[in-house]
Amino acid sequence: MILIGERINGMFTDVKQAIAGKDKGVIQDLAIRQTRAGAAYLDVNVGTAAADQEGTMQWLVETIQEACATPLSLDSQKPAVIAAGLKVINAENGVILNSTPLNKKSDEEVFDKYVEMADGASPKASIIALTMDKNGVPQDIDTRVAIAADIVSKAMERGFDTQRLFIDAIVLPVKVPDAQVQPGNILAAMDQIRHLCDPPPHLTIGLSNLSQGATERSLINRTFLTMAISHGLDSAIVDVCDQPLMNAVATAEMLMNKQIYSDSFLKIYTSAAAD
Amino acid sequence: MILIGERINGMFTDVKQAIAGKDKGVIQDLAIRQTRAGAAYLDVNVGTAAADQEGTMQWLVETIQEACATPLSLDSQKPAVIAAGLKVINAENGVILNSTPLNKKSDEEVFDKYVEMADGASPKASIIALTMDKNGVPQDIDTRVAIAADIVSKAMERGFDTQRLFIDAIVLPVKVPDAQVQPGNILAAMDQIRHLCDPPPHLTIGLSNLSQGATERSLINRTFLTMAISHGLDSAIVDVCDQPLMNAVATAEMLMNKQIYSDSFLKIYTSAAAD
Repeated sequence: MILIGERINGMFTDVKQAIAGKDKGVIQDLAIRQTRAGAAYLDVNVGTAAADQEGTMQWLVETIQEACATPLSLDSQKPAVIAAGLKVINAENGVILNSTPLNKKSDEEVFDKYVEMADGASPKASIIALTMDKNGVPQDIDTRVAIAADIVSKAMERGFDTQRLFIDAIVLPVKVPDAQVQPGNILAAMDQIRHLCDPPPHLTIGLSNLSQGATERSLINRTFLTMAISHGLDSAIVDVCDQPLMNAVATAEMLMNKQIYSDSFLKIYTSAAAD
Repeated sequence: MILIGERINGMFTDVKQAIAGKDKGVIQDLAIRQTRAGAAYLDVNVGTAAADQEGTMQWLVETIQEACATPLSLDSQKPAVIAAGLKVINAENGVILNSTPLNKKSDEEVFDKYVEMADGASPKASIIALTMDKNGVPQDIDTRVAIAADIVSKAMERGFDTQRLFIDAIVLPVKVPDAQVQPGNILAAMDQIRHLCDPPPHLTIGLSNLSQGATERSLINRTFLTMAISHGLDSAIVDVCDQPLMNAVATAEMLMNKQIYSDSFLKIYTSAAAD
């Protein structure tokens, strides 16, 4: 499971304040804690408050890299902000461009731009592509799959290895009226997307959005996450410091035969991080 | 979710001792506690220690029925023990015959016998049928599905409503060497079994067997249970008094749109039992 730590995001108050006060300690502490908890990548999102988003992205990237070598996921809907981050990044061990922007009329052109940015950064650079089009987030299974198929075929046409592609089927808050059919739809879509090509693209989700505004957030998150793992999900942007969630992931991976059962199977992520 | 409470089973020391000492209080307390926790049925298994299995089954059924009206699941591999229980049961609200015996050469004849016993007991009586044949528990997906298809077609031929049929794909302990591929196989089999007929048969499992001998039993059980719910499982024999497990079930049901989200969605089973 490729876990992407969600915490370095300007939407969180501590990060927002750290950005405003140029407080490196807060950011570096989050980077180290998430790495130790088992994050394979650290998501970096400047949030909406920063006036200079490109400069802030660069400051965050440089600040994190002073503390650890964990690969980053540059998270912005603005290609220029991701491009700014790429200018200062050490992408030797990989980087994720998170994600192809939403609601663009000229999907083709935008995807080309992302492939170009990724290839320019590192042969190991990956792209998260959202199953959205100019009509927004699809509400049904078939449209999600059709958009994913389109993304995969674009990647193949451009010679972009589909193993460097993460398809994000976009989780919506379960508390939103009429949205409750969506988790089941996403699982059904994953059942098809993972057969679109061989080797398949990675499947990822931004998990925490699912429980926005709901009670029992951690329980809702980890329950859906383990369900999704049983439908082929192999990556997620999550709170890796949520220990019950990490235990659930380790258990799901063991049950799906991705990890061997041993009496210490729960320690798989923390042991890996300690290496 | 049709939850069958597993605790009245002679394999548990407290039940074994209660049977030996004809201590009704222990049995009735388990019956009431499981009912309050949300059990739709109470499994009744005499275990292996009782000398007179038929008499013990009757004593258990009568003892439970003095305390509550929750329908029972008569659990034995011996048709005569189930038949003995049926003689004294009040099956007005249903009863489950758990389960068709294993490894019989003449499957056809045995299934007929169960249909006859079920129909004799109540129009609401159901049968749990195991996906096993004379070769034992199948190790692959296709054989599980083929056996399930055979069970479904036998039921249809005999005019036995497939909604009174519970197919149990048989969970094996994950700690057994080479068995770790089985949980994934069971989920894949369920994906197919639930499309065998319309309306589909119920899908059930005896969950706790999965974690026999393992550490983190409750975590392993509830993680697999929620995965299985996302693959169509709509029943399980479980420890309904395991609160984290019940919370996971309520969450899984909500995520699969079987229950509406509300801030008190976790209380669905306990509220229903209080009615």
